[in-house]
Amino acid sequence: MRLRNKPWAQKLVVEHPEAILNEPNPEEKINWEERFDDFSKPLAIEIGSGKGQFITTLAKKHLEKNFIGVELQTTAAGMILRTKLEEKIDNLQLMCADAANIAMYLPENSVDIIYLNFSDPWPKTRHEKRRLTYKSFLDKYKRILKPDGHLEFKTDNQGLFEYSLVSLNNYGMKFDYVSLDLHNANDEVFERNVETEYEHKFAAKGNPIYCLHAHFVQ
Amino acid sequence: MRLRNKPWAQKLVVEHPEAILNEPNPEEKINWEERFDDFSKPLAIEIGSGKGQFITTLAKKHLEKNFIGVELQTTAAGMILRTKLEEKIDNLQLMCADAANIAMYLPENSVDIIYLNFSDPWPKTRHEKRRLTYKSFLDKYKRILKPDGHLEFKTDNQGLFEYSLVSLNNYGMKFDYVSLDLHNANDEVFERNVETEYEHKFAAKGNPIYCLHAHFVQ
Ligand SMILES: C[S@@+](CC[C@H](N)C(=O)[O-])C[C@H]1O[C@@H](n2cnc3c(N)ncnc32)[C@H](O)[C@@H]1O
Ligand SMILES: C[S@@+](CC[C@H](N)C(=O)[O-])C[C@H]1O[C@@H](n2cnc3c(N)ncnc32)[C@H](O)[C@@H]1O
Repeated sequence: MRLRNKPWAQKLVVEHPEAILNEPNPEEKINWEERFDDFSKPLAIEIGSGKGQFITTLAKKHLEKNFIGVELQTTAAGMILRTKLEEKIDNLQLMCADAANIAMYLPENSVDIIYLNFSDPWPKTRHEKRRLTYKSFLDKYKRILKPDGHLEFKTDNQGLFEYSLVSLNNYGMKFDYVSLDLHNANDEVFERNVETEYEHKFAAKGNPIYCLHAHFVQ
Repeated sequence: MRLRNKPWAQKLVVEHPEAILNEPNPEEKINWEERFDDFSKPLAIEIGSGKGQFITTLAKKHLEKNFIGVELQTTAAGMILRTKLEEKIDNLQLMCADAANIAMYLPENSVDIIYLNFSDPWPKTRHEKRRLTYKSFLDKYKRILKPDGHLEFKTDNQGLFEYSLVSLNNYGMKFDYVSLDLHNANDEVFERNVETEYEHKFAAKGNPIYCLHAHFVQ
């Protein structure tokens, strides 16, 4: 998804450094204690949040947790920021940043859940390294996740899901949950499911939604 | 699949002990050297062969390998036997036996490939232990497979496939190949695919065929 540039979004991002980190220097330590009311709460991050429907909805539902949305595109990040400010979602912080640097932005063993939702599929083999479930990304997720933390991945993209099953398995991750049709799963994972924009669109088209939960082994 | 009892099949099984082992005593060592022309050839076995379309077709294509079809039901086993005898498929041996005993029937480290095709799904949680991808079966497959051997599993049953992805992963098996729609995969796995009876029927209905290849780690 490449969004058309929205000048208001760029402006909003620049005006709210207390709410969004805009392309932070990976060399500089981020003071998360300062950015959240209570950084000792459970922490969940979403990588590639798009327009933010998922992470803003989840943050409003779970005031007992902290949330960070990471999004590469300024326009999309600005749209999440607008929602955060308008709805006063204080337990949500945003980053306009590349997930490739995630292990520099967050402390080791600090994250409880990483969400990957409808990540760009990069179907060409020569782009494998850009997929957010490629092993170099898994290295980084492993560093920032707590030992009992885990990853939750949803997509409607068959190729990316097949790839990710193999990639996470070959990395040594253990699967906790697999669904090849989450919206008809009739289980507690679907009961507490929060839809993303892409999920809403593709489920409405009748595409099955694939879902995988997995954790690292020390 | 429960087949109607066919007396001719029962009779054929009893009359051909050189071609089919009929409920062999797991305590008695089977002399496989005697049963195959050359037991040093690569060995592939299928568990739950049904009427045998897959294993007989494969055996005729690959004279450089030996094959064993294992089937619980005498009627089904008798139908495979009839094909083997009529078409003189000498590199195929049959067993009318329960796969739960497979590690007693075959030497350790003797098998190159184990095929599981459209195994009974046993959807109820209380029947989990009967699923051919349950961990007690994996223990046995691991024993009989050579260190570089592997498992190939196909099914159209979504629940069984989801279960098996988690079960094999949690056992520590490494995935070599996953397809959520083998018949549209357009790859070399599909190119050399041999259909089973169930596969033919369910693919014709438009069901996606799921496929997983995996190996054990020592
Ligand atoms: C296909 S969209 C999905 C958006 C949203 N998660 C949803 O499900 O509706 C993928 C998003 O991930 C973002 N993205 C892709 N690669 C990224 C990276 N390396 N770091 C951060 N965000 C990334 C893209 O900019 C895009 O907004
Ligand atoms: C659903 S049918 C599939 C037959 C065939 N593989 C196909 O794809 O057309 C499953 C077969 O596995 C056999 N089977 C089930 N459990 C078995 C076991 N524990 N040992 C050997 N065969 C078994 C059944 O008798 C049945 O013939």
